[in-house]
Amino acid sequence: MAEPSGILIKGGKVVNEDFSVISDVYIEHGKIVAVGQNLQIPGGVRVIDATGKLVMPGGIDTHTHMELAFMGTKAVDDFHIGTKAALAGGTTMILDFVIPQRNKSLLEAYDCWRKTADPKVCCDYSLHVAVTWWSDKVKEEMQTLTNEKGVNSFKMFMAYKDVFMLQDHELYAAFSQCKEIGAIAQVHAENGDLIAEGAKKMLSLGITGPEGHELCRPEEVEAEATQRAITIAHAVNCPLYVVHVMSKSAAKVVSNARRDGRVVFGEPIAAGLGTDGTHYWHNEWAHAAAFVMGPPLRPDPSTPGYLMDLLANDDLSVTGTDNCTFSVCQKALGKDDFTKIPNGVNGVEDRMSVIWEKGVHSGKMDENRFVAVTSSNAAKIFNFYPQKGRITKNSDADVVIWDPNMTRKISAKTHHQAVDYNIFEGMECHGVPVITISRGKVVYEDGQLKVSPGHGKFIHRKPFSEFVYKRIKQREQVGKPTAVIRKPYEGKVIS
Amino acid sequence: MAEPSGILIKGGKVVNEDFSVISDVYIEHGKIVAVGQNLQIPGGVRVIDATGKLVMPGGIDTHTHMELAFMGTKAVDDFHIGTKAALAGGTTMILDFVIPQRNKSLLEAYDCWRKTADPKVCCDYSLHVAVTWWSDKVKEEMQTLTNEKGVNSFKMFMAYKDVFMLQDHELYAAFSQCKEIGAIAQVHAENGDLIAEGAKKMLSLGITGPEGHELCRPEEVEAEATQRAITIAHAVNCPLYVVHVMSKSAAKVVSNARRDGRVVFGEPIAAGLGTDGTHYWHNEWAHAAAFVMGPPLRPDPSTPGYLMDLLANDDLSVTGTDNCTFSVCQKALGKDDFTKIPNGVNGVEDRMSVIWEKGVHSGKMDENRFVAVTSSNAAKIFNFYPQKGRITKNSDADVVIWDPNMTRKISAKTHHQAVDYNIFEGMECHGVPVITISRGKVVYEDGQLKVSPGHGKFIHRKPFSEFVYKRIKQREQVGKPTAVIRKPYEGKVIS
Amino acid sequence: MAEPSGILIKGGKVVNEDFSVISDVYIEHGKIVAVGQNLQIPGGVRVIDATGKLVMPGGIDTHTHMELAFMGTKAVDDFHIGTKAALAGGTTMILDFVIPQRNKSLLEAYDCWRKTADPKVCCDYSLHVAVTWWSDKVKEEMQTLTNEKGVNSFKMFMAYKDVFMLQDHELYAAFSQCKEIGAIAQVHAENGDLIAEGAKKMLSLGITGPEGHELCRPEEVEAEATQRAITIAHAVNCPLYVVHVMSKSAAKVVSNARRDGRVVFGEPIAAGLGTDGTHYWHNEWAHAAAFVMGPPLRPDPSTPGYLMDLLANDDLSVTGTDNCTFSVCQKALGKDDFTKIPNGVNGVEDRMSVIWEKGVHSGKMDENRFVAVTSSNAAKIFNFYPQKGRITKNSDADVVIWDPNMTRKISAKTHHQAVDYNIFEGMECHGVPVITISRGKVVYEDGQLKVSPGHGKFIHRKPFSEFVYKRIKQREQVGKPTAVIRKPYEGKVIS
Amino acid sequence: MAEPSGILIKGGKVVNEDFSVISDVYIEHGKIVAVGQNLQIPGGVRVIDATGKLVMPGGIDTHTHMELAFMGTKAVDDFHIGTKAALAGGTTMILDFVIPQRNKSLLEAYDCWRKTADPKVCCDYSLHVAVTWWSDKVKEEMQTLTNEKGVNSFKMFMAYKDVFMLQDHELYAAFSQCKEIGAIAQVHAENGDLIAEGAKKMLSLGITGPEGHELCRPEEVEAEATQRAITIAHAVNCPLYVVHVMSKSAAKVVSNARRDGRVVFGEPIAAGLGTDGTHYWHNEWAHAAAFVMGPPLRPDPSTPGYLMDLLANDDLSVTGTDNCTFSVCQKALGKDDFTKIPNGVNGVEDRMSVIWEKGVHSGKMDENRFVAVTSSNAAKIFNFYPQKGRITKNSDADVVIWDPNMTRKISAKTHHQAVDYNIFEGMECHGVPVITISRGKVVYEDGQLKVSPGHGKFIHRKPFSEFVYKRIKQREQVGKPTAVIRKPYEGKVIS
Repeated sequence: MAEPSGILIKGGKVVNEDFSVISDVYIEHGKIVAVGQNLQIPGGVRVIDATGKLVMPGGIDTHTHMELAFMGTKAVDDFHIGTKAALAGGTTMILDFVIPQRNKSLLEAYDCWRKTADPKVCCDYSLHVAVTWWSDKVKEEMQTLTNEKGVNSFKMFMAYKDVFMLQDHELYAAFSQCKEIGAIAQVHAENGDLIAEGAKKMLSLGITGPEGHELCRPEEVEAEATQRAITIAHAVNCPLYVVHVMSKSAAKVVSNARRDGRVVFGEPIAAGLGTDGTHYWHNEWAHAAAFVMGPPLRPDPSTPGYLMDLLANDDLSVTGTDNCTFSVCQKALGKDDFTKIPNGVNGVEDRMSVIWEKGVHSGKMDENRFVAVTSSNAAKIFNFYPQKGRITKNSDADVVIWDPNMTRKISAKTHHQAVDYNIFEGMECHGVPVITISRGKVVYEDGQLKVSPGHGKFIHRKPFSEFVYKRIKQREQVGKPTAVIRKPYEGKVIS
Repeated sequence: MAEPSGILIKGGKVVNEDFSVISDVYIEHGKIVAVGQNLQIPGGVRVIDATGKLVMPGGIDTHTHMELAFMGTKAVDDFHIGTKAALAGGTTMILDFVIPQRNKSLLEAYDCWRKTADPKVCCDYSLHVAVTWWSDKVKEEMQTLTNEKGVNSFKMFMAYKDVFMLQDHELYAAFSQCKEIGAIAQVHAENGDLIAEGAKKMLSLGITGPEGHELCRPEEVEAEATQRAITIAHAVNCPLYVVHVMSKSAAKVVSNARRDGRVVFGEPIAAGLGTDGTHYWHNEWAHAAAFVMGPPLRPDPSTPGYLMDLLANDDLSVTGTDNCTFSVCQKALGKDDFTKIPNGVNGVEDRMSVIWEKGVHSGKMDENRFVAVTSSNAAKIFNFYPQKGRITKNSDADVVIWDPNMTRKISAKTHHQAVDYNIFEGMECHGVPVITISRGKVVYEDGQLKVSPGHGKFIHRKPFSEFVYKRIKQREQVGKPTAVIRKPYEGKVIS
Repeated sequence: MAEPSGILIKGGKVVNEDFSVISDVYIEHGKIVAVGQNLQIPGGVRVIDATGKLVMPGGIDTHTHMELAFMGTKAVDDFHIGTKAALAGGTTMILDFVIPQRNKSLLEAYDCWRKTADPKVCCDYSLHVAVTWWSDKVKEEMQTLTNEKGVNSFKMFMAYKDVFMLQDHELYAAFSQCKEIGAIAQVHAENGDLIAEGAKKMLSLGITGPEGHELCRPEEVEAEATQRAITIAHAVNCPLYVVHVMSKSAAKVVSNARRDGRVVFGEPIAAGLGTDGTHYWHNEWAHAAAFVMGPPLRPDPSTPGYLMDLLANDDLSVTGTDNCTFSVCQKALGKDDFTKIPNGVNGVEDRMSVIWEKGVHSGKMDENRFVAVTSSNAAKIFNFYPQKGRITKNSDADVVIWDPNMTRKISAKTHHQAVDYNIFEGMECHGVPVITISRGKVVYEDGQLKVSPGHGKFIHRKPFSEFVYKRIKQREQVGKPTAVIRKPYEGKVIS
Repeated sequence: MAEPSGILIKGGKVVNEDFSVISDVYIEHGKIVAVGQNLQIPGGVRVIDATGKLVMPGGIDTHTHMELAFMGTKAVDDFHIGTKAALAGGTTMILDFVIPQRNKSLLEAYDCWRKTADPKVCCDYSLHVAVTWWSDKVKEEMQTLTNEKGVNSFKMFMAYKDVFMLQDHELYAAFSQCKEIGAIAQVHAENGDLIAEGAKKMLSLGITGPEGHELCRPEEVEAEATQRAITIAHAVNCPLYVVHVMSKSAAKVVSNARRDGRVVFGEPIAAGLGTDGTHYWHNEWAHAAAFVMGPPLRPDPSTPGYLMDLLANDDLSVTGTDNCTFSVCQKALGKDDFTKIPNGVNGVEDRMSVIWEKGVHSGKMDENRFVAVTSSNAAKIFNFYPQKGRITKNSDADVVIWDPNMTRKISAKTHHQAVDYNIFEGMECHGVPVITISRGKVVYEDGQLKVSPGHGKFIHRKPFSEFVYKRIKQREQVGKPTAVIRKPYEGKVIS
């Protein structure tokens, strides 16, 4: 029998970023049609009893790399498995990255990514595009991508020297173009020169294991680049988004800049909020290697709590995962040299649980802030709010029903991702996604996924997101410096 | 002819804290009945064309002292004039303070304030209650006020030694009771002992003019008390609200505490955001005296911009005015001794304009954040959101229609307050409230007020505001310290 | 045979705070008579070969409590044993505290302390005096102590409610008197009200062990009081000295204040630099109790390194120990209630070694800074520089010869103190005091002490230490606020 | 008659960095021979009565550019006039910069500078060498300069794109070489890319006057580069010296780094301590242009006081001037385009007076700290202490006798420099150098200079300054990271 076209979620507590209220939610044709009490509902709809549960906007993961070819191998979570795992965790949309090779067309890379992802995705998705080199052609293609292809965010690398890294004057140019076309500039903020030197140094000291990965790029290397990116963006009056803020010092740079009025957003990720870099010193190589990502997790164990405090306080804005999973046998490419360990960790499935556990269960944030940082803020920044990110009439029916009284334990044995370990292994989570609805369809319940490849769609995003650009535009108008009016100098001039 | 019962606001841009959208708003019987496009509206309603204008929740002034008897005289804006002026400026609700004398009943003071205000108010209002002394009776009355009288906020003074000031252990007790009953603790944060000594010192140096008022209580006196209050509140796990944050250093204390996860809210006021303490050094006494309030405005001219940056960034949360107006002839009580100048400034009428000008027009915040800091956050903290603070179905029809393209110049000659000067005199404001609707009735338009005393009502507020208390409760549950399990010590004990 | 009257230290590296140089040092009649190469020395003197060793000013411990009667018992290190232990560790002077009972005469207490100490001390000493209550008599006695008794430092308690604690207005008065008489104000900075409440709370939660001691007075309780003391001192323009800075947050308060130009000095102690508060959670009661002192050591394990960084950087200035030792059977008075554990730890013997190990061996500071923070700065602040604190002609012959290439392990089994444990047990120290010279006499060598009670003398200290007061006086002259010159207000005054 | 070979300075207060004492000073053959009371002095010496005056080590200006060819013209103060002016101001040594052209030999440039300076200098001097490009030859020449030419400090530019600017990896290489050879790395810290873009932008906005100079390189451009340089230096474990710290934000970066234990020194200059960037907005072009230097003075008027507070507190260490003077007719090369105004200001003569006035007279520092920041610290960092920087036996007889009770007014009309304006014009200084002694000879008294070109000598400086390198070396030994010991990974590796 065909699934009924309507779904009524009854008796739950609807949680939006501004407040929570006991309310019913009625869904039809992929949209939320009504929110309220005593709704007039046609017969034959499916009724879900959500009493005692929370009804929240589906999660939005701002940062994934499904099936990315990287460092000589390819991430094992493809767009199919990866997005299914996302749904199992309560996430109903991902933003992945198109990463063109140096000197290659951005548009062609974009097309390639679309061609790969469109038939596979099980939830909605969109694409950021990386700017890995600079030329007039790149500049033009950025404009085309924004005008015609639904892209309003571009990532620039300050790391990966000789591969993706841009110089400061290229960052300046790229940021300028972002602002011109109404996109948000994203940066991977680490000083690539220092990493290159650091890696050489560690190897020369005989440090070849995963701990070398962190030692060669300590957190000040991240903080420095973060400060530099913010300075350059401010010179341009361009909004900036710092992907994967991994350290206390980098996070402090972001939050200080926000206090000074900079239009900058910091994105911590599940890994950074839920675990730490002490694992690089684990005496089992495979365990240690599993955590290798860039920028690294930090050995200071107070890091996750600090990042969560800033996330709770809106010094950091939004959360992703940098999900880019390599199985142990892939990580083993670097068994004798940490610089060859493919960088990447899991997270797309467990992000919501980890943030609930470390953020909400701990009392650092409430359920409303949880919605803001896992969903609404992403939708605002990347300009598809309130289409997504809010439980309200006319929004997309991407919903997660959350049981705050259930617990589950994270494990690679039970997760839905393709990778053969889980960096959160053993974490007990108070709060469990029990039903996920994507595009108006129940795709996950009773621990079962019911969804087919291609169920998800690409979300076109328009430029000049109001949330990001209102201040930018106003400053452009009222903030222009002006010249002092003076009589011309008429004295002697040396010849 | 009777005014039509319904009002349709057409074509405006509805601005809520999370986003803006062109939409119509239909109002009936004091409530917002519908928000959307192509609404089905009965005939005979009044239609207001808001094309090109912003339709925003009416402002909420969190801090006024109408007709307060203080320092030997009485504030000239009474509840009638003061609330009318508020409406003219786009503010549709005020929160005033009941201030009992030392050793007097809080309940009786509350009744007295209600009796005075109820028949006069032209907009809705509510009451904070000051705890100016401490005893078991005070403790009980706090409970009664919360349970039965609609009060969920209590203010404690750390200044006004021998008049209102509480000692640290009394603050601890009062904060503990606030938490017990689900109220928010408010503090006037200045070190009263240092002010008392400072005042003596300035007079002994022959400094009798208004500059002495600031010199005797420089900003570190405010910052110290702010830090102390936050420390005490944290020891109790009680939410804290710092009224009138006036200085950069005090604001920094608040924002650092928020970064550390403290549940603390800072309230800058219109005066502090729109002008500064250099006026105390003005060579005309009456001019200088007009700005005297406690804590004082600060002579550092970068203060207002700094406070606005923090307000934009949610390091500070909400805005009031401390409106407590004394005319020049009243200020003159202190013509020979600054300690006798009645403390207080205007603001209730101009708050919205000043924040728009210095915050939104300057590009520091956008219109959505403007709504948050002038209205929504106050409603959330003091627990009447979304009854007020949001343009949405079922909310109170307290609305301001704002023309962002008009300008006006603030002046005592044209303002609606009773006081004979205006501390913002001459400020040009881009952005003007053109229509104010209170309780579903147009009360201000075309520069005319159309409202009668008693139009406003007292708003009962319930304890345990979710916005404030969700984290508090969770921490109480998960944050309790536990004892180390040890074998008893069985060695020798000195006798 | 009598010891020769002269001592020639040959070939060592003389280390002063500003630089080091290979040089001989000649000592006669308790004084350094010459420093240089190829000195003309009379025959018959003792020659000490210091080749490869450092010749440094003897250590000055700014903070001890020998044989203090406290919390129902008496510290086991008396002036005899305690000062002998000091010498064994390279410390040649201590500053102890006279602590009068509330309402008792400061002068009588001073006399009592002198009578006890004078016949026992094995090294030079001086006395701070605590101001534990306030009255005109106290004020007068402070003057007498300064004018006639060689005291130029007074300590005020912000903790120990109902025992020693002063209120803010009493602190203001005491600081004012300090400034008047040219003394330095010292504070024990913790909020006594919060400690009292915190202790009650912990006991009510069933936390009776040593961990309760820290939990009832977390570091923000220290930081708050530190900020308050600095604010009050600045209001008075009085120099301030914060004894036992124990936490990162309190240390940050001190260093921020110094950046703002405050005349404030912070004193970390050996315990805080060498160990941490995780010991309070040790599962053996006696172990945990040994570390109980106020303010407590902090459980954040990065605290000692942070304090050392600030000490290296002159954000903190000088080091003491708060040596106040109670043996296990005395600590056991609090076996069922942490509030009854006598507060105090050891340190007087090991301070120099601990700071060398954690400061110099670690590379955080060099040997010159070591001399500054263990000796010279104390002499400057308390006004007996360069009589002590420098190896130079005419200075007192208080010298330690240090072997930077030896190591020793700290242990209660080998230490010279009376107490039956050592909080630094097992610490390996690179750098060992091999010979100590006090008042021109070798009192410690080859691990043997050769000194008799009464060898040490009381050091009279004069008021208005230049190091402290030059800035204070200049500010007093140039920093006075002045009145604005205005025409009198001649308008109407309300009656 | 020949001047007597000996000089006795009687009755003055000898001021060293650690303390002051009334003492006589006897000088012979260019050296201080004795310091003390009742000195045994041969007959026939000159006796100077210094009663009521201060006898201090002559000033050391760490940063000058005499007769530098720059931006199409040449600085008007040559080594003769410049060093004479220095002496008139109480400065007895300068450190100038050798600045080779890109791709030119450092050694040849050094020789050229020596050839120019040696015959002209009237006081002792030494030379820093700039590294304006990078190659193996540069690296070798750095070694030669250090081993053979008396240079232990090298400056790298992060500004002046395409002229002197190094890339990050070149900074890394240069810093590495500095550490290898025991030199201190100096940086001009501004982001050259941002300046280049900023300048284009300002000109495009029609801003051609001197205000454009500051607008195109606001202080965050300086702070960013400062942070970057510190990060790179720390990666290398190389000591760093930041020349001309001009802004609050850059100074804060330096002082935060010092708190974190970085071996970094910040050098504010007289211009930055004594005046500010509001002058760039002066309505007279020639006035505004006089202040143009890089990095610019800052328009925030609280900057000089902030820098002085940090200098007083040892967050900043030492003072120079960046003396590089261009007369108005030279500045006029940029009358239509601020990018063509030759960068540079005066200071070599007035530095001591300005720091005394703003630092000592204001009460921010005392006379001892004055000596540290104007003389001793420079000698320590650059490794010629206590040859210079201290009044003590065997030190060079470079002395200034200072009258703290005299006043003088700074003016271009009376100064001894060649330039035709003075950026400190009109500043009243309490405290005047009355006699300057260089190399044991009175060269300035009664307002008269008595000195000939070539009187001064080049000071050879050795590498591995103890003050700088003791910590560096110790950290190198104890701070090396080590590898985790693990069993080899023996699992599957993807092919």
